[in-house]
Amino acid sequence: QSSVTLYGVVDLGISHGSGNTANWTGMTSGNINSSRLGFKGTEDLGGGLKANFVLEGDVKPFSGTGATSGLASVNSNSNNTTVPSAAKGGFTFNRSAWASLSGGFGELRLGRDYTPTFYADANYDPFGVNGAGTNRIFTNGLAGNVNHLRASNAVSYFLPGNLGGFSGQLMYAFNNTASNAGVTKDDGKYLGGRVGYDAGPISLLVATGQTKSAAQGDVRTTSIAGSYNLDVAKLSAEYSQDKYGAANALPNEKQKGYLLGAVVPVGDGEIHASFVSQKATYDAQTVEAKYNQYSLGYVYNLSKRTALYADYSHVSNKGSAAFALNSAVITAGSSSSGYDIGVRHSF
Amino acid sequence: QSSVTLYGVVDLGISHGSGNTANWTGMTSGNINSSRLGFKGTEDLGGGLKANFVLEGDVKPFSGTGATSGLASVNSNSNNTTVPSAAKGGFTFNRSAWASLSGGFGELRLGRDYTPTFYADANYDPFGVNGAGTNRIFTNGLAGNVNHLRASNAVSYFLPGNLGGFSGQLMYAFNNTASNAGVTKDDGKYLGGRVGYDAGPISLLVATGQTKSAAQGDVRTTSIAGSYNLDVAKLSAEYSQDKYGAANALPNEKQKGYLLGAVVPVGDGEIHASFVSQKATYDAQTVEAKYNQYSLGYVYNLSKRTALYADYSHVSNKGSAAFALNSAVITAGSSSSGYDIGVRHSF
Amino acid sequence: QSSVTLYGVVDLGISHGSGNTANWTGMTSGNINSSRLGFKGTEDLGGGLKANFVLEGDVKPFSGTGATSGLASVNSNSNNTTVPSAAKGGFTFNRSAWASLSGGFGELRLGRDYTPTFYADANYDPFGVNGAGTNRIFTNGLAGNVNHLRASNAVSYFLPGNLGGFSGQLMYAFNNTASNAGVTKDDGKYLGGRVGYDAGPISLLVATGQTKSAAQGDVRTTSIAGSYNLDVAKLSAEYSQDKYGAANALPNEKQKGYLLGAVVPVGDGEIHASFVSQKATYDAQTVEAKYNQYSLGYVYNLSKRTALYADYSHVSNKGSAAFALNSAVITAGSSSSGYDIGVRHSF
Repeated sequence: QSSVTLYGVVDLGISHGSGNTANWTGMTSGNINSSRLGFKGTEDLGGGLKANFVLEGDVKPFSGTGATSGLASVNSNSNNTTVPSAAKGGFTFNRSAWASLSGGFGELRLGRDYTPTFYADANYDPFGVNGAGTNRIFTNGLAGNVNHLRASNAVSYFLPGNLGGFSGQLMYAFNNTASNAGVTKDDGKYLGGRVGYDAGPISLLVATGQTKSAAQGDVRTTSIAGSYNLDVAKLSAEYSQDKYGAANALPNEKQKGYLLGAVVPVGDGEIHASFVSQKATYDAQTVEAKYNQYSLGYVYNLSKRTALYADYSHVSNKGSAAFALNSAVITAGSSSSGYDIGVRHSF
Repeated sequence: QSSVTLYGVVDLGISHGSGNTANWTGMTSGNINSSRLGFKGTEDLGGGLKANFVLEGDVKPFSGTGATSGLASVNSNSNNTTVPSAAKGGFTFNRSAWASLSGGFGELRLGRDYTPTFYADANYDPFGVNGAGTNRIFTNGLAGNVNHLRASNAVSYFLPGNLGGFSGQLMYAFNNTASNAGVTKDDGKYLGGRVGYDAGPISLLVATGQTKSAAQGDVRTTSIAGSYNLDVAKLSAEYSQDKYGAANALPNEKQKGYLLGAVVPVGDGEIHASFVSQKATYDAQTVEAKYNQYSLGYVYNLSKRTALYADYSHVSNKGSAAFALNSAVITAGSSSSGYDIGVRHSF
Repeated sequence: QSSVTLYGVVDLGISHGSGNTANWTGMTSGNINSSRLGFKGTEDLGGGLKANFVLEGDVKPFSGTGATSGLASVNSNSNNTTVPSAAKGGFTFNRSAWASLSGGFGELRLGRDYTPTFYADANYDPFGVNGAGTNRIFTNGLAGNVNHLRASNAVSYFLPGNLGGFSGQLMYAFNNTASNAGVTKDDGKYLGGRVGYDAGPISLLVATGQTKSAAQGDVRTTSIAGSYNLDVAKLSAEYSQDKYGAANALPNEKQKGYLLGAVVPVGDGEIHASFVSQKATYDAQTVEAKYNQYSLGYVYNLSKRTALYADYSHVSNKGSAAFALNSAVITAGSSSSGYDIGVRHSF
């Protein structure tokens, strides 16, 4: 039917992670692009108005399952509309599920979608938050945070595309909770926004968002990112801060991190390189938690749709940080490294 | 591939329910048409014979999940072929999953499909059993009943379409249970049928169905419905009765309800209005259970595929009845009201 | 989108099984071809190189659910990448989920796919391992075995198609387990291969595979199969052995079975017939476990895509064998019979 486009990605690889407690070797998915299956469409309503929809879900083609972490993964916000944890594994439309109206006024979108701060994490990371080299500000190597990826039950307004390089989004997400839920009645509510500017080689983005949580004292994420395209290389940087409240298990915890990245075109491929550093501080802190991460990768394009890839990443933890790569197991303060090799096919 | 049609609905809205214990505000799905994704096709076998199939499942685009209530929702019959309750949330083909052969003789259909009484509930309800204004005879505000929506493991025979306005269906559903299951060995078996007549402005339907249940003393649903199209308005009515056996927790319980409805075309839209009243009686009854429901809605069509909508409904309970709208929480005998606003996009 | 082909099968029937403890009658799926929904595509990369993918999952259209047995069904290998058992029922891509590159060198495939020994079980069975007449060497009537169907996390190399009738596959499957998992750290690793030869009426296949298991003492399956097409009938045979280690609950258990089959074209249909016999032996054996199975079926093609079918199978168990057909319940050493009638529609 002409009104639906079926699309997806199958990205499969072999990965290794090493650590001082255990190594891991196995088959993995989504090392340069998340494997997915999606359905989308646009209807022209006349007068510049359009109706749009997307239904898109994670696929783990090494086992054929859907999202193994369900809606409530570490950095995604289920806004209290969770799937029972035992249900993980079935195919869902956990990646994007929305309908929208767009036109000269911009776009009004309802459903499950990326949060504004996701764009700062993903678009300025040479590794696009996939694989061993994933920018760990995004996955929050130091503590879980639901602001970084997606929100359910969300209403978003997007600025129109003709504002001289400026772009923007404002997102509010309901928590679908009854008013008699006591101190947790606001848990999961999200409010965030972003403003971007793109002109020639320059791209800039500022984004912020907060999820209500009685147990964590509300969680705010603020990110600023930019890139400059020198043609021989595209350089990028991100600074991001996650801030928890006094009620958090680590009272008033702050996680501050930055990324420096480069994408270098080489023949039919690209070299990807990044350095990431993140540090956590909190009241009554006794042991520092910090890590540095170096990543290097190469993507070779067999076509626009199909690519071979290899990447390597190393993380050195300090203090109580224990961030391991590719399912390796480590003790706090030790190092981990990992690599991925594989193939990505888009359809 | 030409042999498959991909289709669906994404219907997303913001809903509110109010009640004397708790209010609820959040994002909802399917307020005028159930959100879904489906695959269907027809093959011409020659001589008027056709092979047909449908695979169609619920989608909850506010979270990207599939059916949140699984197969065994209040008014759907899983015929003992249940999915473990913990599996709710994954996408399935819970709406329709069947293959059929059709021709001059009519149609023989095998699989999961609507029960005959569903057509009385849905086709004569101005709200099409969706949203706050859903005809609560269908959802059984007074007690759960598996006859009203779908049956698994079903064999249906449909009369051919050329019988001078007459239509009909006979459905038998297996319960897929071994013969040594004791008193519950027939639980879930379903037998039902319907006869309809359509001529010019007139539409009439009589339907009945029974599900075997040792614990509930068998459950029979019988409905009669009709509509008359005056052009300035289409008026409709339904009378429906659910009857339980002596073994039921409320012995020999009967639920009797009726609906009066109107659909009024206005410009590019339609006004929907209905009044529903249902009452439960049973042996040894000490407290009356009864409610009246008033609903009013408006659907504005941006195109054939895309519409904006708003609806409001109010229910007043009496006695032990405690039927609340849009996830509001109430005490028995009190009132509840709710509204939905949103957008429906078909593809 | 031209790059994706949507395809599937809906096969629904009514089945009966009889046994001395309980009979069973109900609706079943996949009696001549497994019901499924799939997405596949091929991209021409130039120079004979192609990128390919398949995402295909089980559908149970009698209830609309996905695979009811999850990834870890008796004869399928999840290679430790299991879906929680409670999640069974949601649609997944449990049948096939892979990406590959193919060309003059053959094909390199990553993901979840059939094991090499599956081809011996399925391609030489007149019933194609579906329905009551399924070759029970495949389903292991005498004991579960994960080698016979599929493996997750697998890397396969396939010989190219131009080797004068010779074909071959080598498959290794990771178990995605950390190195500190103790004695079970290799559990689920699979290594297998097959070599085939096809020339005119002759088809031959030898296949073997082993799954590591600390609890079962490693499990090896070896099969040899062949067929000869006499035009008036295609005759086939398979011999297969499953061997467990000393650590198995039945130490050093061996299951040896053979199949004799015939497919006879008759008008627009085919008669299928088979005889299967399997026997288990093990150290300290006190009671023999053995069965013989006779099966007869007829498939009538309404078109290439749509067929009607009927089949009957009878199994006589001896000793501790208690293999029942179509959900019948029997005591050890007794008999069971079953039949299926239904329709299969491919799209």
